[in-house]
Amino acid sequence: MSVNKFDFGLVGLGVMGRNLLLNMADHGYSAIAFNRSEEKIAALRAAATEGTVVDGVTDLGEMIARLKTPRKIMLLVPAGAPVDEVIEQVLPHLDSDDIIIDGGNSHFTDTLRRVKYVEGKGFNFIGVGVSGGEQGARTGPSLMPGGSEKAYKSLQPILEAVAAKVHGEPCVDYLGKGGAGHYVKMVHNGIEYGIMQLISESYSILKAAGLSNEELHEVFKKWNDGDLQSFLVEITRDIFLQKDDQTGKHLVDVISDKAGSKGTGKWTSQDAMNLPVAIPTIDAAVAGRTISGYKDERVAAAKVYPRDNADLGLSKEEAIQLVHDALYFGTIISYAQGLSMLYQASRELEMDIPLTRVVSVWRGGCIIRSSLLEVFTAAYNSSPDLPNILLSSQIADLIGQSVGNTRKLLAKAITAGIPVSAHTASLGYFDAYRTAYLPTNLIQAQRDFFGAHTYQRIDIPGTFHTEWNS
Amino acid sequence: MSVNKFDFGLVGLGVMGRNLLLNMADHGYSAIAFNRSEEKIAALRAAATEGTVVDGVTDLGEMIARLKTPRKIMLLVPAGAPVDEVIEQVLPHLDSDDIIIDGGNSHFTDTLRRVKYVEGKGFNFIGVGVSGGEQGARTGPSLMPGGSEKAYKSLQPILEAVAAKVHGEPCVDYLGKGGAGHYVKMVHNGIEYGIMQLISESYSILKAAGLSNEELHEVFKKWNDGDLQSFLVEITRDIFLQKDDQTGKHLVDVISDKAGSKGTGKWTSQDAMNLPVAIPTIDAAVAGRTISGYKDERVAAAKVYPRDNADLGLSKEEAIQLVHDALYFGTIISYAQGLSMLYQASRELEMDIPLTRVVSVWRGGCIIRSSLLEVFTAAYNSSPDLPNILLSSQIADLIGQSVGNTRKLLAKAITAGIPVSAHTASLGYFDAYRTAYLPTNLIQAQRDFFGAHTYQRIDIPGTFHTEWNS
Repeated sequence: MSVNKFDFGLVGLGVMGRNLLLNMADHGYSAIAFNRSEEKIAALRAAATEGTVVDGVTDLGEMIARLKTPRKIMLLVPAGAPVDEVIEQVLPHLDSDDIIIDGGNSHFTDTLRRVKYVEGKGFNFIGVGVSGGEQGARTGPSLMPGGSEKAYKSLQPILEAVAAKVHGEPCVDYLGKGGAGHYVKMVHNGIEYGIMQLISESYSILKAAGLSNEELHEVFKKWNDGDLQSFLVEITRDIFLQKDDQTGKHLVDVISDKAGSKGTGKWTSQDAMNLPVAIPTIDAAVAGRTISGYKDERVAAAKVYPRDNADLGLSKEEAIQLVHDALYFGTIISYAQGLSMLYQASRELEMDIPLTRVVSVWRGGCIIRSSLLEVFTAAYNSSPDLPNILLSSQIADLIGQSVGNTRKLLAKAITAGIPVSAHTASLGYFDAYRTAYLPTNLIQAQRDFFGAHTYQRIDIPGTFHTEWNS
Repeated sequence: MSVNKFDFGLVGLGVMGRNLLLNMADHGYSAIAFNRSEEKIAALRAAATEGTVVDGVTDLGEMIARLKTPRKIMLLVPAGAPVDEVIEQVLPHLDSDDIIIDGGNSHFTDTLRRVKYVEGKGFNFIGVGVSGGEQGARTGPSLMPGGSEKAYKSLQPILEAVAAKVHGEPCVDYLGKGGAGHYVKMVHNGIEYGIMQLISESYSILKAAGLSNEELHEVFKKWNDGDLQSFLVEITRDIFLQKDDQTGKHLVDVISDKAGSKGTGKWTSQDAMNLPVAIPTIDAAVAGRTISGYKDERVAAAKVYPRDNADLGLSKEEAIQLVHDALYFGTIISYAQGLSMLYQASRELEMDIPLTRVVSVWRGGCIIRSSLLEVFTAAYNSSPDLPNILLSSQIADLIGQSVGNTRKLLAKAITAGIPVSAHTASLGYFDAYRTAYLPTNLIQAQRDFFGAHTYQRIDIPGTFHTEWNS
């Protein structure tokens, strides 16, 4: 502990904060935390790797005084008012060029406000999305920083050191102005919601086809060794083997189907509507979690509407192949929706988000890391300004290989009464997106009919209103 | 014009305001408008039915001075800041017990704020949702008032006089506290979005089955004479006959497919997520309008992904029957989602919204009026506290008659590559709602695996976390 000054300071010694600090120390950076609890500080010291420089203090001013300048102070406290409170406590101790880093799950509008506020006082504020869970924080998260590029530059060495690595490249990069870091993290989480709902629906179809947990494990294992390789498929593989200590059953079978959420999926859907951008797979995932909470109503409704047609009409082998293709297709669509949202938000909210870097950063450390992100990185490298990855010819090949079986599977699932809302939202998005002339001309006619809202024509420029005959 | 004092005052002489005023005058109420434009006032006078008492003035204070007390002053100005500005202009002229009525499309949070503000000054503020378009305002709209019940009582005679009538009953009733009136109107519009998207997708399927505009007219005419009877089906029937003055073609065929929106559908989806309540059909409709705006991308994507499988595999007769049933099913689901949202919002936001009255008010005058609302009125009359109309046995019969063909149709549409997102969202909602045990247990396992978010069990109360094996 005998260093004069520390490289990095942290406010908030939860598991994420502690793990991130230990990770920094493992990479040769001295790090110090502020926490009111002596116990948490003792636990931090005890967990540090031998020979690394980690300390904790119960006085915030002392922590800040013990940092090298420009000071780098990360907040890992609950999103909302606590962040503002800590900022106020930190500010009196700062010198110009010092950097406050918010590593929590703050809403991007809060981050944008704080950037302006803290910069107005002559300091720097960087919002960083951190993904990877507790384990990722300890061994290599994906980091999504945004705000002042100059301030980022002075953080870059330490962030690159702690971040996950893919092909030796760190999973961190400067992702844009203002609240861009938290915006990218929010959309990351929206995509995560979409893919998780797709996996859960895929699981229910495979169960309906008769697969046991052991067989589900084998299927996800095989998928994770192939083109579906991803963190979420990998942990799903492992989940199916986990046994319950209490009953000896498979743990997944005794877990309640009421799914929780922290709200970032909701934020993604709500903000997409403000832009507006369509992300119906993510919307369906948000709705899916909400419906999962209607436990009593669902139990009552199951009696009113018993499922009497659950035969999928597919062998296990057929089901596995079709579900593979549908999950592959839906996963691509989830990314496509999220990335198209970033494309639009970057322009509307003047964030200058570099999509090539976003998909590159997402390749490792984060919850939605997958081999598909290598494909997207290649696609954006050749066309950095793609409004939607579905317009990339590389992606078109992958869609072409999977969409036929997706249709086959969803027709079967719909017939059998299995809820597959995220899957059908993905296919519906694709089918609408690739339709040059949609039937929404009728909606414009209706709106003009009942509300004189006017319409445009396909042949003559301008805005028109008709006195409709009824 | 030689009356001493007027029964009703209006600020905002747009088409809606003028028509509502003329409607009041037709029912024997003297009404006066404030507008800065002499021309608009002249137009109002010219449009008044002979023998009715209507006037306009260019001075707001004069208008208010010429009203009977307690004064009833309706604002029909654009939602947002203009409403607050007019309130400030009106307030200095008021006496206690006077009533300001906001008849615009205000967001319910604004209405709630204004209720508190205006009541704090000793006056009354009533937010009224008005639906029916220009024509409805003139001949009988559906009116959705909320706020102080005492203030409503003094408005009741005039509102009942102007409202649409169904079986002699006026389509207006007290719908709850605070911002309840505008809340109900917002959800009304959300349901409207859902049904319009369902009709537009239905249209595209029937087009794919080969129906001409004349045949579409006949189909919607027949439907409107049967159990699909509704204002939206009725105007759709008429739309298919309308000819274009410029080209002599059917007008619907020259209207652009970029659909506009005023934002109330978006509000509905966003607020549903806040509650949270799942309204995925409405979400899909909001997304559908957004995708309709991606014209250039869709044209580009249509070249990358040409539709080569558009054969529906249904005769015209088969398609008409299946689409009828799917539209019937989807329409019920749209109402079910919206009404379940009102059920929840009424409790969460302490509005005491009487659902029996809501469906009764919606039976006439408004855009979503339909014969189904008679069925819902009966269902709520026998069970006023239904959390979801799908749990009503009357509704279960209607669902049972239509869900089988809905499955058949959607399987065909999905196979043929026709976008049917609102239809599949409706079916997916139903299938999830009537499932006692959803596969979201897997999502809880994943969340606990990567984020230690904990889970509940089906067999033991409490909250659990597992150190998962990977």
